[in-house]
Formats: sequence, C-alpha cells, structure tokens
Amino acid sequence: MTVLYDKVTLIGLGLIASSMGHAMKKSGLANTIVGFSQTKETRDMSLSLGFVDEITDTIEDAVSDSDLIVLSVPVGAMAAIAKIIGPKLKLGATITDVGSVKQSVIDMVAPHIPNGVHFVPGHPLAGTEQSGPTSGFPDLFKNRWCILTPLKNCNKEASARLKQYWEALGANVEYMEAEHHDLVLAVTSHAPHLIAYTMVGVADDLGRVTDKEVINFSAAGFRDFTRIAASDPTMWRDVFLNNREATLEILGRFTEELFDLQRAIRRGDGDQLFEYFNRTRAIRRSIIDAGQDTEAANFGRGSVE
Amino acid sequence: MTVLYDKVTLIGLGLIASSMGHAMKKSGLANTIVGFSQTKETRDMSLSLGFVDEITDTIEDAVSDSDLIVLSVPVGAMAAIAKIIGPKLKLGATITDVGSVKQSVIDMVAPHIPNGVHFVPGHPLAGTEQSGPTSGFPDLFKNRWCILTPLKNCNKEASARLKQYWEALGANVEYMEAEHHDLVLAVTSHAPHLIAYTMVGVADDLGRVTDKEVINFSAAGFRDFTRIAASDPTMWRDVFLNNREATLEILGRFTEELFDLQRAIRRGDGDQLFEYFNRTRAIRRSIIDAGQDTEAANFGRGSVE
Repeated sequence: MTVLYDKVTLIGLGLIASSMGHAMKKSGLANTIVGFSQTKETRDMSLSLGFVDEITDTIEDAVSDSDLIVLSVPVGAMAAIAKIIGPKLKLGATITDVGSVKQSVIDMVAPHIPNGVHFVPGHPLAGTEQSGPTSGFPDLFKNRWCILTPLKNCNKEASARLKQYWEALGANVEYMEAEHHDLVLAVTSHAPHLIAYTMVGVADDLGRVTDKEVINFSAAGFRDFTRIAASDPTMWRDVFLNNREATLEILGRFTEELFDLQRAIRRGDGDQLFEYFNRTRAIRRSIIDAGQDTEAANFGRGSVE
Repeated sequence: MTVLYDKVTLIGLGLIASSMGHAMKKSGLANTIVGFSQTKETRDMSLSLGFVDEITDTIEDAVSDSDLIVLSVPVGAMAAIAKIIGPKLKLGATITDVGSVKQSVIDMVAPHIPNGVHFVPGHPLAGTEQSGPTSGFPDLFKNRWCILTPLKNCNKEASARLKQYWEALGANVEYMEAEHHDLVLAVTSHAPHLIAYTMVGVADDLGRVTDKEVINFSAAGFRDFTRIAASDPTMWRDVFLNNREATLEILGRFTEELFDLQRAIRRGDGDQLFEYFNRTRAIRRSIIDAGQDTEAANFGRGSVE
C-alpha cells in the first residue's frame, strides 16, 4: 500500500491510538510512527507492543518534523496540548484529533495552530468498552465510520489525504459540519451513554435489591447497559462537559417520551405500548441492513462459562 | 440422564419453549414432548424442527395425561389458557410458566388450578432479541439463572423436581417470593427495556437528525439499545402492564438520578460526573466475575462485514 505520511505522531496511547498504530503497521501507511503519552509506563508498554516505532520523552520531540499528528487524548486535555505543540509543528503538516465532540475541540485547538499547518478535526465511530494501550487491535475501524469536520477554509489536499488515510485504515469517511456532528452523536452515543450510566447507578443504589441480585440476574437486559457504562470515565466526563447543549436537548426529548410511556403503563394502555415497541423493532432491522451490526442473536454471545 | 417427567407439554412454541424442547431432547429428561401453539404453521414448523415429538390440534389434547405443563406464552395470555386447561389437568401433574412477571401470573393462573395439581411459577432469565420456534437452541439456559416462586402451601416434592429439571437444562435455580422477584426484575430487566425502547423511539422521531445518520452512526453506543429494543413487542407490552408498580417505581428513581446528572452537566460539575462513571465501572467488573458476561471487548463482536 502507498505511504501516505512519512512520519505519523500519536499523542495519547489508548484504545484508538493503539488501534491506529497496529492498523498502520499492517498496511504500511507510514514510514515511521512516533508515540507519546504522559505516563512513561504507557510509552514503554506501547513500544514493546510494537504499534509505534519510537517513543519520545517530551511531547515537543514527538511532533517535530512529523507529517501527521493525531491528538488521541480526552477532549478536556486537547487545549493544553495544542498550546504546547502548536509552535513546534512543521509547515505543511496535518494535525487531526479523534475526539467525540467536534465544535469545542475546534474552539480549543484551532487558535493554537499556526498558518501553513492544516487542522482537520475527525472522529472515528469505533471503540469498545476497554481502554489503554493493550486494548487496541488493527481491525477496530474496519467498516466503521469516521466523520471529518474540516473548517471552511481548510486546505483541500490535506483534507482529501486524511480521508484517504482513514479509508486505508478500513473506515468509511463522511464529511460533516462540526455542529451537526455534535447533534448526531448526542443521539447515537452521548445520550445513550448517560442513560446507561444512570441506570447502572440506580441499580447499585437501590437498598431493597441486593448487589448480588443485580449482578446474578443481569442477563435479562441490564448487562448490556453495564457494558456501555464501563467505558472510560475521564473520556466521558469530557464528552458531556463539551457537548452540553446537544446532550441536554436530547435528554430532554428522551424524558418527555419516557414520561409518555410511563403514563401509558400507569393507564394500562397496551395498544400504545405495542405500537411503540413494534416501531422500534424496525429500526433494528435497518441497522443490521446497513452493516452496522450482526444478526447473530445476543451479539453471537454464547453461554458464559 | 434420568427421565424426570414422562410426558412434558409445551404451550406456546417461541424462543423459550423451543430452547427447552431442544435441551430436553439433548439430555433425555422426558419420554415424550408434546407441543401446542395457536397457529397451525407454528405447530407444523416445531414438529419439523424436531424439538417436540407430537403436536395436537387442540390445547385440551395437549395437556391431557401430561406430567409437566409449561406455559410459555406472553403473560397476558395466561389467564385464558389456565381457565381452559385447568379442568383437564391430570391429578399429580406439575404446571409451571416462564413469564417475566410472577405475582400477576399467580393471581391469574392459580384460581384455575384444581386441588392435587401442583402450580410452581418460574422464570428463566435467558433469552435473545429473537423470537419464534426457529430461534431456540439447546444451550440457552446454560449457566443462566431460573427463579422459582412457589406458593406458600406448595408441594415440596413437585417444587424440588422442577428445580432438578431446570438444573438439568443447565440453569442455576433460586427460590424467591413472587413480589420480590418482580422488583428485582424491574431493576435488571423491565426498566432497562423501557429505557432502551424510549431512546430508540426518540432517535427515530428526531427531525433534525436523519434516519440514515442514526443508522450509520449507531456503533457508538446506540446499537446496543436497538438490540434490547428489538425484543418481542407483545411479550413486553404484557410485562409492563403486569409489573406496573415496580417498573414505575424504578423508573421514578431513574429519572430522579438522570435529572441530577443532567444538572451536573449543565453546571459543568466534572467531579460529580467522573465519580459517578467510575463507580458504575466497578459494577461491570462484578458481573464478569459472577460469570454473567464475558470480558471480550464489545461482546466479542468483531467488525461487521
């Protein structure tokens, strides 16, 4: 495969960066992959896992002379990093990020990017509930979507090359306005995560049902919530703080609708419930048809030994 | 393996009954398995799938001379069936059910069961989002829990034999009071299902985000909700109508907690969010340790082709 960037720098070495590293290694998209993380232990681990070629002791050294810099840290950490590395970026380099929120990342990062360096924000919609450098695998992005939200005056060539890069990692790429991205993700990701966290918290809190009961009898629906609610706490704190308006809007719609269904239960309106549940079933069908999930029952998860 | 019941009758031939049939065949727990469903097509299909030995044209014929009768129909259909079959049950037979709600099933079924027939209500906590006679498989109950809620004056031998039967199907069995069962399940299953249905409905309803966007970008959390929300609409309508009080109580606690987290987002209280998310993560760990889920990332679901 063609080399798209001579030197790629991964800043933050968690699930997404380690998966990108493994995928680049597999496909030969870069000649050199440099990694940096705040923690020395994480840096050493990443080098020994082999998804980076080099690590550096300072973040400045990691980005100098790099052709593609990927900010792969929680959204709340991006501003400080952009401020430090901005002056060190090579003329003509591209800088991107993988944050789950786009407008606030643009607001925080763009002011620190010098003229002549191309900032193309991005968000790969891929992940698992696990985190850290050992959690990555090369196929994470395969057949998943990556949304790019380039700014109005963005260099066309830089943005097209980044698209090509994500496609080479296995993803489908779509361009979108940052604000619209944040609304779409509030629906498909941010609100569902907050809801799952909440339900798991309620179960934990409830005096009348023991923890042991919740845990043993979780197979009936609850355990899917616990998977979602096991995601990285720092990352998610930053998502909610940085996509505040859209998340609160969707949660408002959600509680409105939930109250309506609660009322149907209270009034014993079986027709309303049936009709609602029948409609949501059709949506599942569309997701399977779109190739974003498998038809295997229970995610193909067999009995647990 | 020992034959525990000479003749077993499955009434309703969906996911649970077909899985019970396959599991009984595999383990030789019954000499004869009789099946009945309202729909002729379902009966014929079940016979050709081989998880029943016989089908009958009437429900009365299905239960006559049977040693174990399993009501495996939506909760709302149980009263009418109990009324019809009650007078036909053999003295000394055991009748059980697999409904997700227990107190209202007891209220509806018990009055129709004659003296000398042993009614032992049950609920296997196992299932997938699929339904119908083709969806069953013999390992569905393996290492899952089955809760039995025998009435106060229940025949001890009948209840012990049913426990032994479920253990032979692979399940762990726990006895519980019906009312407590309904509260526990409201937490671990009923409330999570209503919440998932609601969120999927909201996404579908939202004019500003297109259906295509919701579907394509579902991988980021939402698709787990769609799986839950794809479950059988009739079954779930009946669950909510018949476990009204406990479900509404838990949903009340849920919205209280959700409002508190929404308020933290609005106020920008990152510490509260982080602490909450960190706590819920620990619960996930306990569920994996209890053997009720696997540690495989994303349920071991690889990329979707």
